[in-house]
Amino acid sequence: MAFSHLDTEGNAYMVDISEKTPSKRAAKACATITFSSEQHFLTLKDSCNKKGDVLTVAKLAGIQAAKLTAQLIPLCHSILMSHIDIQFQLSEPKKQIEIISTCKTNNATGIEMEALTAVSIAALTIYDMCKAFDKNMIISDIKLLEKTK
Amino acid sequence: MAFSHLDTEGNAYMVDISEKTPSKRAAKACATITFSSEQHFLTLKDSCNKKGDVLTVAKLAGIQAAKLTAQLIPLCHSILMSHIDIQFQLSEPKKQIEIISTCKTNNATGIEMEALTAVSIAALTIYDMCKAFDKNMIISDIKLLEKTK
Amino acid sequence: MAFSHLDTEGNAYMVDISEKTPSKRAAKACATITFSSEQHFLTLKDSCNKKGDVLTVAKLAGIQAAKLTAQLIPLCHSILMSHIDIQFQLSEPKKQIEIISTCKTNNATGIEMEALTAVSIAALTIYDMCKAFDKNMIISDIKLLEKTK
Amino acid sequence: MAFSHLDTEGNAYMVDISEKTPSKRAAKACATITFSSEQHFLTLKDSCNKKGDVLTVAKLAGIQAAKLTAQLIPLCHSILMSHIDIQFQLSEPKKQIEIISTCKTNNATGIEMEALTAVSIAALTIYDMCKAFDKNMIISDIKLLEKTK
Amino acid sequence: MAFSHLDTEGNAYMVDISEKTPSKRAAKACATITFSSEQHFLTLKDSCNKKGDVLTVAKLAGIQAAKLTAQLIPLCHSILMSHIDIQFQLSEPKKQIEIISTCKTNNATGIEMEALTAVSIAALTIYDMCKAFDKNMIISDIKLLEKTK
Amino acid sequence: MAFSHLDTEGNAYMVDISEKTPSKRAAKACATITFSSEQHFLTLKDSCNKKGDVLTVAKLAGIQAAKLTAQLIPLCHSILMSHIDIQFQLSEPKKQIEIISTCKTNNATGIEMEALTAVSIAALTIYDMCKAFDKNMIISDIKLLEKTK
Repeated sequence: MAFSHLDTEGNAYMVDISEKTPSKRAAKACATITFSSEQHFLTLKDSCNKKGDVLTVAKLAGIQAAKLTAQLIPLCHSILMSHIDIQFQLSEPKKQIEIISTCKTNNATGIEMEALTAVSIAALTIYDMCKAFDKNMIISDIKLLEKTK
Repeated sequence: MAFSHLDTEGNAYMVDISEKTPSKRAAKACATITFSSEQHFLTLKDSCNKKGDVLTVAKLAGIQAAKLTAQLIPLCHSILMSHIDIQFQLSEPKKQIEIISTCKTNNATGIEMEALTAVSIAALTIYDMCKAFDKNMIISDIKLLEKTK
Repeated sequence: MAFSHLDTEGNAYMVDISEKTPSKRAAKACATITFSSEQHFLTLKDSCNKKGDVLTVAKLAGIQAAKLTAQLIPLCHSILMSHIDIQFQLSEPKKQIEIISTCKTNNATGIEMEALTAVSIAALTIYDMCKAFDKNMIISDIKLLEKTK
Repeated sequence: MAFSHLDTEGNAYMVDISEKTPSKRAAKACATITFSSEQHFLTLKDSCNKKGDVLTVAKLAGIQAAKLTAQLIPLCHSILMSHIDIQFQLSEPKKQIEIISTCKTNNATGIEMEALTAVSIAALTIYDMCKAFDKNMIISDIKLLEKTK
Repeated sequence: MAFSHLDTEGNAYMVDISEKTPSKRAAKACATITFSSEQHFLTLKDSCNKKGDVLTVAKLAGIQAAKLTAQLIPLCHSILMSHIDIQFQLSEPKKQIEIISTCKTNNATGIEMEALTAVSIAALTIYDMCKAFDKNMIISDIKLLEKTK
Repeated sequence: MAFSHLDTEGNAYMVDISEKTPSKRAAKACATITFSSEQHFLTLKDSCNKKGDVLTVAKLAGIQAAKLTAQLIPLCHSILMSHIDIQFQLSEPKKQIEIISTCKTNNATGIEMEALTAVSIAALTIYDMCKAFDKNMIISDIKLLEKTK
């Protein structure tokens, strides 16, 4: 039960992966954004039905952010991703959009942080695009769904 | 009830703030990260009590990310922040860390996205530093607390 | 008839704008991307009619690149833009997309380089998204249309 | 005849290259910048003959931009380049500078976008450095010359 | 005698400049790079006399790095610089290049860190360009020369 | 005795590493920051003894900068680092902090520039955090200690 990024004295420490073998790795993460009223959710849903750009902008933001993960999370290693995908599920009863990302790499370290960064920034982008009509959205349930190697 | 970043046909659109007057603006946002067991939470808490670097790394990551907000959120304007602060509250009963950011600017547009980005990346950084011993943390309750002008 | 970014000996030089007064400035630029056959152009046009994401991705790339102009063009000053817009015109007879950007700032220096960077990267993004079916697109007519102060 | 970066419903999509094998790949691209008068072209040429820094600045800007391609073109994969070169040809009869880039990688995906980005930003940099004396330059003929694997 | 970037408990802290008034500010900094032998220094000097690109590349790297200061130094505020200049002095007796930067801003905070970053990265760039023939260069005397307001 | 980054005419040139074989490589570099008085040095040392954040912030800044080396040093290749570490040694008699970095990669080119960038930015960050009480610190002795392959 040790910290991945602290040495024995509690100082920040980047893991040494120089002896790890590159291999196919993938990670899946999710996030949820909840609107404050049914009316606000329907405004978003209606825009999506008319092919408004909200979810496209969010997807691109998430993909771009995933590539910047090592600049954002201080002790992450830079890696090359072979694939990033982001999908959205709208749930009217819950007034929610669920965001799911999949990231793949052939490098020597896991990519759960990339998958988590992708959904977080995608969610913040939806927030940014809807904040003019809903000032009380909440982003939650950011978590790892799966990690394979 | 209009989208801040879509034109009338649903296309992505950046708001024109050229006629807005610069003024003192501030925003406060929060996020919560919940550990999956009391034992895991206590591992983190114990490290913090010994002045381990987890929260310092998270704070710096959040501050640095706030400065990059306009690169991360596609339709955000670049602004100059006059202050960014991030504070942490540990709650043992809830196995949670609450993260609170305050951002200030003297520019011509609000900075809630900077405050929200700061707490989101700070939370992801805590996740990154603790994921070796807790694989089931959840980040939630990312929301705006206050916006003043 | 002097170089804006060379000193009298021909060395690279960044203009000193410390005595210039901030004021409302705008610039408009354009670029054209030409497909190699009518069939290829119609593939793109058809996708746009069905609200495919090509032009949205290009618009976002152009907007994001405009914000990065000072990182891309070595002797450009960092500025804060108050607005960036990018519009597309499809011309079937010419097998072309014309891309037009408008950038605004209230800072102390012109923003034609931001407007030109926006259309250039938007054009490259269209190229990237269509290169699987047209390997002979050409980007041309990148020029300044208007500069006001 | 499919889009490389759209799924079947027209949504933005990043290609999955996780099954592709790394191999030596290269790409060559070009761009042209045309001055608005012979006099303006000769001002530039004369500066180059005296070893003024215009083309050096443009070369460096192009090399640096090539490294940033995946940040600029949203659906491009990050890759490691093993070589980037940029050369310039001055043509007095055409009042033009032709810019030619060569990029190499040993990764699992093509690098034409890097080569195209390099010449585009090099051309914009020449524009920036000459815009004080020529306000009507035009950048054109940005295209791929060669792609090998 | 307090730390500018620590709170009273020793935690990292970004100074709040929201009440400071924008004004003309400048800073000058220097750095020195010393070659390990006279022969190595003369190789560099000879290249400079023939207008080789070493110092131009170093100057551009320094200017570009100054613009990135707030991304490099965690608790620095983002500012807009109105001018950055870098000059080089070759001293044959000392086998040294002295690098001097001048930075200006009209913003609400000092820019000594930008001036110091500029000379540091310019020095590292000279190191990079000469390391094939001199493996024992030393960079020293990085310091602030002047700060005005 | 040739320049690594100039062609035979003295023009900037990026080395072609496409034929080089990836292998384990490491580099160690150091830098020193000297305080202007014993009293100032003791202020810093006292803060470190109380686990103040100065050195943690400097370490993170150095690690993050190492990842950005190819963006900072124009002719450096982008590489993936498998490890970055930064250690600090305080010397009261010398009123100095010595900063030592270790960088590792499995790529096809050396990483001394990453190790040198790490210590330089770490030193500048200490400068930034102490400049409120010591305006005359000097950074020196930036040099390569070791390079292995």
